[in-house]
Amino acid sequence: MLLSKLVGERTKTNPSDATIPSHILLLRAGYIKLVSNGIWSLSMPAKRIARKIENIIREEMDAVEGQEVSFPVVMPKELWAESGRYFSIGDEMVRFKDRCGRDMVLGMTHEEAAVHFARDAVNSYQQLPFMIYQFQTKFRDEARSRGGLIRVREFTMKDAYSFHIDNEDLEKYYYRVYDAYTRIFKRIGMKDVVAVKSDTGMMGGSVAHEYMLLTDVGEDTIVLCSECDYKANMEVAVSVRDNLRDEVSEPLQEVFTADKADIAAVSEFLNVPENKTVKAVCYFIKGTEKPVICFIRGELEINESKLKKVISAEVVPANIKDIPGLHAGNIGPINLSVPDATVVFDQSLKGLNNLVGGANKPEYHIKGIDFDRDVKIETFYDVAKVKEGEKCPVCGKKLVLRNGIEVGNIFQLGTKYTKTMGMTVLDKEGKAVNPIMGCYGIGIGRAIASVAEESHDDKGLIWPMAIAPWQVYLCALRIDELAVKEKSEELYRALEEQGVEVLFDDREASAGFKFSDCDLMGIPIRIVISPKTLAKGNIEISTRDKKIQTDVSYLEAVHKIKELIYQLSG
Amino acid sequence: MLLSKLVGERTKTNPSDATIPSHILLLRAGYIKLVSNGIWSLSMPAKRIARKIENIIREEMDAVEGQEVSFPVVMPKELWAESGRYFSIGDEMVRFKDRCGRDMVLGMTHEEAAVHFARDAVNSYQQLPFMIYQFQTKFRDEARSRGGLIRVREFTMKDAYSFHIDNEDLEKYYYRVYDAYTRIFKRIGMKDVVAVKSDTGMMGGSVAHEYMLLTDVGEDTIVLCSECDYKANMEVAVSVRDNLRDEVSEPLQEVFTADKADIAAVSEFLNVPENKTVKAVCYFIKGTEKPVICFIRGELEINESKLKKVISAEVVPANIKDIPGLHAGNIGPINLSVPDATVVFDQSLKGLNNLVGGANKPEYHIKGIDFDRDVKIETFYDVAKVKEGEKCPVCGKKLVLRNGIEVGNIFQLGTKYTKTMGMTVLDKEGKAVNPIMGCYGIGIGRAIASVAEESHDDKGLIWPMAIAPWQVYLCALRIDELAVKEKSEELYRALEEQGVEVLFDDREASAGFKFSDCDLMGIPIRIVISPKTLAKGNIEISTRDKKIQTDVSYLEAVHKIKELIYQLSG
Repeated sequence: MLLSKLVGERTKTNPSDATIPSHILLLRAGYIKLVSNGIWSLSMPAKRIARKIENIIREEMDAVEGQEVSFPVVMPKELWAESGRYFSIGDEMVRFKDRCGRDMVLGMTHEEAAVHFARDAVNSYQQLPFMIYQFQTKFRDEARSRGGLIRVREFTMKDAYSFHIDNEDLEKYYYRVYDAYTRIFKRIGMKDVVAVKSDTGMMGGSVAHEYMLLTDVGEDTIVLCSECDYKANMEVAVSVRDNLRDEVSEPLQEVFTADKADIAAVSEFLNVPENKTVKAVCYFIKGTEKPVICFIRGELEINESKLKKVISAEVVPANIKDIPGLHAGNIGPINLSVPDATVVFDQSLKGLNNLVGGANKPEYHIKGIDFDRDVKIETFYDVAKVKEGEKCPVCGKKLVLRNGIEVGNIFQLGTKYTKTMGMTVLDKEGKAVNPIMGCYGIGIGRAIASVAEESHDDKGLIWPMAIAPWQVYLCALRIDELAVKEKSEELYRALEEQGVEVLFDDREASAGFKFSDCDLMGIPIRIVISPKTLAKGNIEISTRDKKIQTDVSYLEAVHKIKELIYQLSG
Repeated sequence: MLLSKLVGERTKTNPSDATIPSHILLLRAGYIKLVSNGIWSLSMPAKRIARKIENIIREEMDAVEGQEVSFPVVMPKELWAESGRYFSIGDEMVRFKDRCGRDMVLGMTHEEAAVHFARDAVNSYQQLPFMIYQFQTKFRDEARSRGGLIRVREFTMKDAYSFHIDNEDLEKYYYRVYDAYTRIFKRIGMKDVVAVKSDTGMMGGSVAHEYMLLTDVGEDTIVLCSECDYKANMEVAVSVRDNLRDEVSEPLQEVFTADKADIAAVSEFLNVPENKTVKAVCYFIKGTEKPVICFIRGELEINESKLKKVISAEVVPANIKDIPGLHAGNIGPINLSVPDATVVFDQSLKGLNNLVGGANKPEYHIKGIDFDRDVKIETFYDVAKVKEGEKCPVCGKKLVLRNGIEVGNIFQLGTKYTKTMGMTVLDKEGKAVNPIMGCYGIGIGRAIASVAEESHDDKGLIWPMAIAPWQVYLCALRIDELAVKEKSEELYRALEEQGVEVLFDDREASAGFKFSDCDLMGIPIRIVISPKTLAKGNIEISTRDKKIQTDVSYLEAVHKIKELIYQLSG
């Protein structure tokens, strides 16, 4: 490719609305162009990266017997009504009427289409298991698209759906895909990816893993053990905490705490540590005015994903003034009287004594609360967020918290879709059963951005050889001199004939200008041909990270470049 | 691929709602699955064909220096308002509001996106010419989707856009793409494709060609010369007709014709040939009640595309009762009095005499009309449809009419989009000018269906080797016998290791059942392994068309199969 003809604006200055490195550098290097909020065009180099990533994914999906298919972007309401998701998914799903007035949707994912595709064609256990996958455009009308290609509204996703006769078979296959995903991210060139247990969210199902690229700009939090292999998404992470009970329980005692309304203030005012207090957090069940009151140890926070599972309902923060019987800042487990409230106690409180909690009247708290003696509830739940430094539930060593970008996910879906959409097969005994499904996604654009996030320096992007848009950046300096022009064109042709992917900087521009474009675009190998190198019969070869920088004979150039590409391909 | 696991319903019976061979056979062979009117899922073999076609197109687009990019499916109204097409395109464009209430559209084509993508990045003539292309999903809300993949609402299209400094450069490039398209259709395996001049329609621009696969089921009509190279789409085709004037002009004479209201009836009643009559056809200018009255020789039909160009407005058929002054069945050029009407005379009438036309009063016609003597108009236009057997405008030999499917199109767009969207570059003199564009499309799904239309027999599809979903169908007969099972699995592995694409029919089923699936699916080479062939140490190789049918030694099988694939790849 001639750089002089490559469409894509390269700029020196950082765009004002971009804050994370991948966003800034993909824009500055001319890889992406904003069309509308969360909607992008990709230029040739970005598309080349996307295709290389897709090819790696395709190879790994084919290796686990995937069948590449294609489902439509636009689907009729009926399909999504069958699964119920037409009604349960909110504004992030685009709905419109076609010219005949029929309700249509834009696919956010394709479970419904996959079941629709397979349900008539598959009717015997002998046809199971199978996996179908596609690369297809999805549209999710995200309220907060951000960060370039990290969180967008329109994107290409590899989505895969497997169908099994029983859970055992799904489990076995699921971990084959688990391993395939590990290989995919490694081959793409992501270094710091971990698979963590996660919540299944709107997808339904039970077991799920997210593949997280650990990076400071990630908006997800991941809990990792500093010693063992334990890792989990914050939404499902658990930890072990000591619930230390004092030897002697003091009596209950009301104390005046004036306007001290939060844990920090009460704790300071009464001079007790925060882990000797009881915190109350109030919610409404979503769409209702039914209150949910959670009690948790003072230094901890509520994990709303866990809470949702405990009470089997989504919650929204409540305005306490709207709940009769509650006094904001003074809510406690003793003398609590709120009709119809769901009350949840976190296990961090279990067995503790000598705690301070709200007195359920203005300006007072109660000291000396003993959960065994005074509260007497049977069941404590885990609804607490894991904190850095708590103990690993597996090995007891310290947990650490990291930020991450979700680069892929896999779900054991169960029969949610086959049951609602009426897909059955006959099992060995001739009985009609619903196949059990797994589903497996990777976003292509986000993968590009994630690699950029992990692999760049202050000069620009640094693409791994496996997905680099071109392998070689051929820099002709003083191309106005005939010898340079001829030799560089000759080398360009020779390399292309040998299947080497070359971006040929054929512009009449200064060395500094060219070098900085080369670094910005992140091409792994740079070749320089100039009057100086040619005088010695040489070219100069260097790698993007400058670990290799060497002169080689012009006559050996093609051979040496191919060798270096092979070496960098790991 | 194991056929036992391939998802896709193969059926013996013709689907009731399919009428053309490609629709019937793609459905019956399990290649496509209807999701909604004009919206399809593709199974693995169809997707494999699609990818092979895409790869051929990609190679040819890259060979004319195309840059593969990606534009979004969903675009903001603003982009389409800039070009004006947001307002000029009707119901076939899907419009919806996003969650923030902003107007969005689904892309039917991507001229706007291409200009948006390039206009900031390109600002000098030195960056021209360039061509950008993509494979992307389009949605056109067709009123009449039909024929399986022939006319759909959602489809994948290769669309390409080139930008040039002047018309000369566009023209040069345009014919390079013209040749690339010829190569593409040949490589895909379409035999009977012709490039015909066509109307530019909603795209704007001047010169355009459609690539037409000639087939009886095509819904477009193409005019071809039986001798020379003249070919044109019906919309723009012209012909040469004799306008023979009688030596003696008879006087005008009103004749009673009672209720004889059409040309055939009047012609029979008065015993004059149809080409001695004047036909009137009435329209309204679209969206108005302004009448357009066309006069044409009795045996000819109006070509509305030509008429549209003549009067620079679209027309819709008029209800004659709604036009004061007109009497249905008796409209003629003499004594015509319709205020505000646009009257158009076709050149088939020029210079003729002794014609019969309506008398503009009920139940009467006029005989003896002499256009030179009685009508005296200056300009005749060509608004007639070409008829089979008329003379070629180039060589004068006979024209023939054929039906065709449009499998691709190329347009010289001019500056319609760069002008309205404000894209300029500095030319050599430093003057800002609008680049001149070309655009070039091929629908992938329609290409699949078109090949199927051209290449099938009563047993099923016949894929050309270049795009066949698999090269070889490996048919193991009596796979319940250990020797067959072992040898067929061994051959399957050996072929796959050698890069041969094999669909392995590993089912326990009868020979007839397997052979008919093989024929239906249209795989080019069939291999049979059975107890009988193995007894002789052989396998049986045959081609889908049965031109080759031979036994070869099992030991030579891989070699012979590869040889045959090479041979069939032409």
